[in-house]
Amino acid sequence: MIRVALDVMGGDKAPEEIKAGALMFAEELKKAKKNIHLILIGTESALSDLRNHRLSDYFTLEIVRDYLPMDIKPTEALRRKESSMYIGAQLLKEHKVDAFVSAGNTGALLAYATLVVGRLSGIDRPALAVPIPSLNGFTVLIDGGANAEVRPDYLVQFAAMGVEYARTLGKSSPKVGLLNVGTEENKGTDMHKLAYQMLREKLGPAFHGNVEGNDINLGTVDVVVTDGFTGNVALKTMEGVAKLISHTIKSEAKKGIDGLIGALLFSRVLKKLKQKLDPRTYGGTFFLGVDGIVVKAHGNSDRVAIKNALKVAVQGVEKDLIKNLEAQLERWK
Amino acid sequence: MIRVALDVMGGDKAPEEIKAGALMFAEELKKAKKNIHLILIGTESALSDLRNHRLSDYFTLEIVRDYLPMDIKPTEALRRKESSMYIGAQLLKEHKVDAFVSAGNTGALLAYATLVVGRLSGIDRPALAVPIPSLNGFTVLIDGGANAEVRPDYLVQFAAMGVEYARTLGKSSPKVGLLNVGTEENKGTDMHKLAYQMLREKLGPAFHGNVEGNDINLGTVDVVVTDGFTGNVALKTMEGVAKLISHTIKSEAKKGIDGLIGALLFSRVLKKLKQKLDPRTYGGTFFLGVDGIVVKAHGNSDRVAIKNALKVAVQGVEKDLIKNLEAQLERWK
Repeated sequence: MIRVALDVMGGDKAPEEIKAGALMFAEELKKAKKNIHLILIGTESALSDLRNHRLSDYFTLEIVRDYLPMDIKPTEALRRKESSMYIGAQLLKEHKVDAFVSAGNTGALLAYATLVVGRLSGIDRPALAVPIPSLNGFTVLIDGGANAEVRPDYLVQFAAMGVEYARTLGKSSPKVGLLNVGTEENKGTDMHKLAYQMLREKLGPAFHGNVEGNDINLGTVDVVVTDGFTGNVALKTMEGVAKLISHTIKSEAKKGIDGLIGALLFSRVLKKLKQKLDPRTYGGTFFLGVDGIVVKAHGNSDRVAIKNALKVAVQGVEKDLIKNLEAQLERWK
Repeated sequence: MIRVALDVMGGDKAPEEIKAGALMFAEELKKAKKNIHLILIGTESALSDLRNHRLSDYFTLEIVRDYLPMDIKPTEALRRKESSMYIGAQLLKEHKVDAFVSAGNTGALLAYATLVVGRLSGIDRPALAVPIPSLNGFTVLIDGGANAEVRPDYLVQFAAMGVEYARTLGKSSPKVGLLNVGTEENKGTDMHKLAYQMLREKLGPAFHGNVEGNDINLGTVDVVVTDGFTGNVALKTMEGVAKLISHTIKSEAKKGIDGLIGALLFSRVLKKLKQKLDPRTYGGTFFLGVDGIVVKAHGNSDRVAIKNALKVAVQGVEKDLIKNLEAQLERWK
């Protein structure tokens, strides 16, 4: 049986949307008769209405006394050892669950993942790995926001993890690109120039060289390596473009009967587009480099995003992501 | 009369597409009877077929002996004093032209703009200011790629220039946001934290605080301030999303008769969308902070982009951008 812990108290819309997402997921488990069990971590007042729920075969309640506010500082989070997020990390550490999902504060989750769950050997800093829709299926962006500042050797570790993750997702021999402001070797800061040399040395032909922002969605490479600051800005920028586009389509369509009928006939295409660009489709992203499956859901997650984040976590367990990563890191030593 | 110099030798598609763009622009001048004159800078072999051209009343040829390759290093560029780009900067410095447009190497153009044309008083580093389509009309992103690394005080200078540019483009009291990985005050690197304090002190209520990548297209603020590395990645990422979307729409529409008819009826909407997202619509962006109108066109510019870059340059001259900037910087001292 796969056991997945969910931090019911983390996220802008916690606890209601998080609970609703858990119930959506439980409903699917019931239909598919899957051998998966949820551990819902939250306060008594947040979880009491789930007692004797018709889906309660599919989850266990873990009552805690504390939870973290969304704007908590990581250093303070480390002292809150009775918080729902801490308890989740602790359950994972003790192998009482196989995966842990939270939509709470990213910095706090990173701190717990690193210091409570622990890092894999050979990894200095865990990173967020985000599969992005691209012309080539998808591109893994790593780091998506865990480490605002990096060293060149961290980027090499991100590359190793990104390659293994892309392999787990079905790419046979993933190519890696370094996100930069031009494709020439001498582009970017001194950090980037050094990272370029190290990546070339370590990856050999699997290193494509520098790539630019547009290459993420074009799918020029399978893995795009970057610091967490730039990665986060790129991800959020994609969200903004998608919103601008959906708004433009809606407002322009309303301006004439051709637009209205067109939109109707075009609905299948627009639905596909929305699905491709909706961050909720992915729901959650892995903190790679941790000795356990930790999935970060978007802080703004609604029930659909939470349900999908739980699916991502299950996928990680089913595909043995941690063991594969360890083997990959061993080979790279 | 407004005189605009164009570097015919700069750009991935130089000289043919650059010349074609100049001729498109000249054609429009002829139709609109505008008092604008082009100075086309290039080698004899690149420009000879424009002699005795039917539009030759609208341009003058400036023959040079040298031009810069696209991958030149800025330090080497400074030695190439007979190159088309250098001559363009020189003409601007000597007030023989009112504006200079090039699609050549960004670093070289920045070096010439800074060291040949010269900086405005109070500006350490010129920056690329890019108007981005947003739900609120447009958002000025500064720096769009001139300075890969910045100091907090550079960001304050970028803010001053961005505000004045937004004003020139029609915003009455522009709000400024600092691009970061979260909206809270303590987000980002030490550089960002310091920049936040300096911006708040200097801008007062005009400083909105931190913004995220999605805020660029959402139009949360009128000016988004960032380093040139992050700004360039954000801009290029937008391009990539737009391409993925246009590709998805095309390939999905082909999958059924509903999609095909829908696309037809929807063509007005799609055209509007394309126009909004096509980087060629802007064509060129100002290097702000230079004592003269210098417009950088995208390295990949085709004729349409070049024509639009020339329009951008003319707009800068007509709106007295440099004088307004100088007055703004004076007020900020």
